Amino acid sequence: MAKPAPLSPLAPKSYPDLVAIEGVRFATAAAGIRYKGRTDVMLALLDKGTQVAGVFTTSKCPSAPVDWCRARLKGGKARALVVNSGNANAFTGKKGAQAAKLTAEITAKATGASLGEIFLASTGVIGEPLEASKFHGVMDELVHKAQPDGLLEAARAIMTTDTFPKVASATAKIGGVEVTINGMAKGAGMIAPDMATMLSYVFTDAPIAAKALQAMLSAGVKTSFNAITVDSDTSTSDTLMLFATGAAARRGAPKITLASDRRLAAFKQALDKVLLDLAHQVVRDGEGCRKFVEIHVTGADSAKAAKRIGFSIANSPLVKTAVAGEDANWGRIVAAVGKAGEKADRDRLAIWFGDIRVAHKGLRDPTYDEAKTSAYMKGEKIDIRVDIGLGTGQAKVWTCDLTKEYVAINGDYRS
Amino acid sequence: MAKPAPLSPLAPKSYPDLVAIEGVRFATAAAGIRYKGRTDVMLALLDKGTQVAGVFTTSKCPSAPVDWCRARLKGGKARALVVNSGNANAFTGKKGAQAAKLTAEITAKATGASLGEIFLASTGVIGEPLEASKFHGVMDELVHKAQPDGLLEAARAIMTTDTFPKVASATAKIGGVEVTINGMAKGAGMIAPDMATMLSYVFTDAPIAAKALQAMLSAGVKTSFNAITVDSDTSTSDTLMLFATGAAARRGAPKITLASDRRLAAFKQALDKVLLDLAHQVVRDGEGCRKFVEIHVTGADSAKAAKRIGFSIANSPLVKTAVAGEDANWGRIVAAVGKAGEKADRDRLAIWFGDIRVAHKGLRDPTYDEAKTSAYMKGEKIDIRVDIGLGTGQAKVWTCDLTKEYVAINGDYRS
Repeated sequence: MAKPAPLSPLAPKSYPDLVAIEGVRFATAAAGIRYKGRTDVMLALLDKGTQVAGVFTTSKCPSAPVDWCRARLKGGKARALVVNSGNANAFTGKKGAQAAKLTAEITAKATGASLGEIFLASTGVIGEPLEASKFHGVMDELVHKAQPDGLLEAARAIMTTDTFPKVASATAKIGGVEVTINGMAKGAGMIAPDMATMLSYVFTDAPIAAKALQAMLSAGVKTSFNAITVDSDTSTSDTLMLFATGAAARRGAPKITLASDRRLAAFKQALDKVLLDLAHQVVRDGEGCRKFVEIHVTGADSAKAAKRIGFSIANSPLVKTAVAGEDANWGRIVAAVGKAGEKADRDRLAIWFGDIRVAHKGLRDPTYDEAKTSAYMKGEKIDIRVDIGLGTGQAKVWTCDLTKEYVAINGDYRS
Repeated sequence: MAKPAPLSPLAPKSYPDLVAIEGVRFATAAAGIRYKGRTDVMLALLDKGTQVAGVFTTSKCPSAPVDWCRARLKGGKARALVVNSGNANAFTGKKGAQAAKLTAEITAKATGASLGEIFLASTGVIGEPLEASKFHGVMDELVHKAQPDGLLEAARAIMTTDTFPKVASATAKIGGVEVTINGMAKGAGMIAPDMATMLSYVFTDAPIAAKALQAMLSAGVKTSFNAITVDSDTSTSDTLMLFATGAAARRGAPKITLASDRRLAAFKQALDKVLLDLAHQVVRDGEGCRKFVEIHVTGADSAKAAKRIGFSIANSPLVKTAVAGEDANWGRIVAAVGKAGEKADRDRLAIWFGDIRVAHKGLRDPTYDEAKTSAYMKGEKIDIRVDIGLGTGQAKVWTCDLTKEYVAINGDYRS
């Protein structure tokens, strides 16, 4: 295993005030899955009636916990969430499925919840069998000590090589009643030696039915978690879940069953804000990163084309190393636009770094000032805008730079 | 610009004996496009009747010379090829097209060839106008001094940050008469600071018509140049051309018009060998590389699926950094298979490093010996085999490792 990395220079300077969500309680423990001297399992206990939605990795080789969650999501109800770090329970075949089932059984026994209301995730080494029996020793204690204000500690327990725990919070009114949305995330793509997984869990006290939650989550993920990349390596375990305890109904919030309900407008905005905040924190903890990069593609043939072009730029090792080298290398952006496979016309393309237009109509911009651009590239946040000049499709994606530290963390740890 | 990199540790130990191809003459000169004290333009003069085929970048923002060549390829005839290094003439708009035309006009005047028989390429900086008028001063000299045995010098003149010139040669019999195939290439993907381009030119004295050449080239590129990746960054200028002078007809070789002609069997094999040799040399000069990696995917749903899975592995930064770190990290290979988007079943997957099977049927192979595998990973050539266990589709792709030197070369050159 790698030495713990120093705190990412892009880490948030402070944590938000976290108002506890009624109906959710958290606890953490050290089950000894892999790490010594730190917590490695977290339990979220959810009050009866909690509705749940989730989106999972598109990997064709998903982890056993992902298989478990997918199969149980259609019930729409959740009572417990158990997440361990240290072992991903991925590529572990039938033993992996058995380990997931045993984890759920231990949790069901300790909580009284039924198996169909228990959700799981594991993050860490791929290919090692998970010794789920280790949860026997800690589950009763977890249930006993669960507290509403344990979100930050829970976020810490599921870290692998993350350098900081990731939490975010927002409030919104539904039918005049304030509800809260709290979320946590871990990972930065598939970032760490032998490890995998981006996990994120969002909780709210809003009384919203599972189907409506699912519709909002599936929409919100497109412009947040599905618009970031650290190293283009999709994990076998990516999981994003949204739990709604409904506790705010007791304070008069109306029960909502349809995502199209107009009373959800503010909630949707607040949810999208939390998702985007968490997604950005994942990028800001990208291995070896020093720059946070926003890529805004406009004027593309469609929104889908814009996003594909954006990812072609965001995943280009040459663009990412150029940003690391503080070089406004727009030639590499042209090449990345060209290889994206979407419509583009060299003679219409324009490229900006910050407010500085460096290329215009198939040529270097005549007003382009190299010294000014170099100064801009020294900043911590780099905004790249690319106008394709063909249509109205646009998209934003986010990434970080590719540094020697990324290679060192992922390649040198054996030497 | 970066300092010249030291010779790639994967460079070939010697050059092949190059028998000159009758009907082709080469010359090089220093036109002062960008570099000082080295050749930067090469001319290949082709005898009347030379047939030509070509394949070009799939980039939607191709360079001006690529546009020029595409438009002239349908004529099927070639008399001259002019390639410069130091400037890619890409993303240069109408000025770029004018510069390409001027280059061709200067060449036409000096050689007596018509514009439609002149082919061009440029490699180097993107976005700077190419001062094609500089070719005025050297073209007559180039035509005057062109010699049949100048292939290696020509390969050297078109280098940008390549650390060695790339040439390959093979012979084959057509109708009992021996013909020769000589090729050259430059680049290693889109590898260098501010630069672009993979270029390759293959010459033969075989009397084969353009349509048949094109069919063979389009087929051959799939398993050679289109099966390699250094950094997943497709260039705006990628060009592969095949010229057949037909001179061997004078020694009794039959004139061939159809690619399906059975008398071409040996020629096809020899052509594929030359293309693969050159493609491998491009990988072996990948920036910062220390390992040459062959990825063989078997048991996929189709050959296309196998290739897509192969590239998903070959382009994974986590797989490439693991190889650099001499770590047989098969978990990252599982993840890369999973994200490829093709059919895969965790419980059927098997993975080998060399002859060592590390994973089998959804589990770590029980016979897997970590010490033996670590010893294998210290080698210079790493063979990875992945069996998907579903069908009969297979493909091989080649790449190199991702090292800190890659990031340094592409990111640190300003500091």
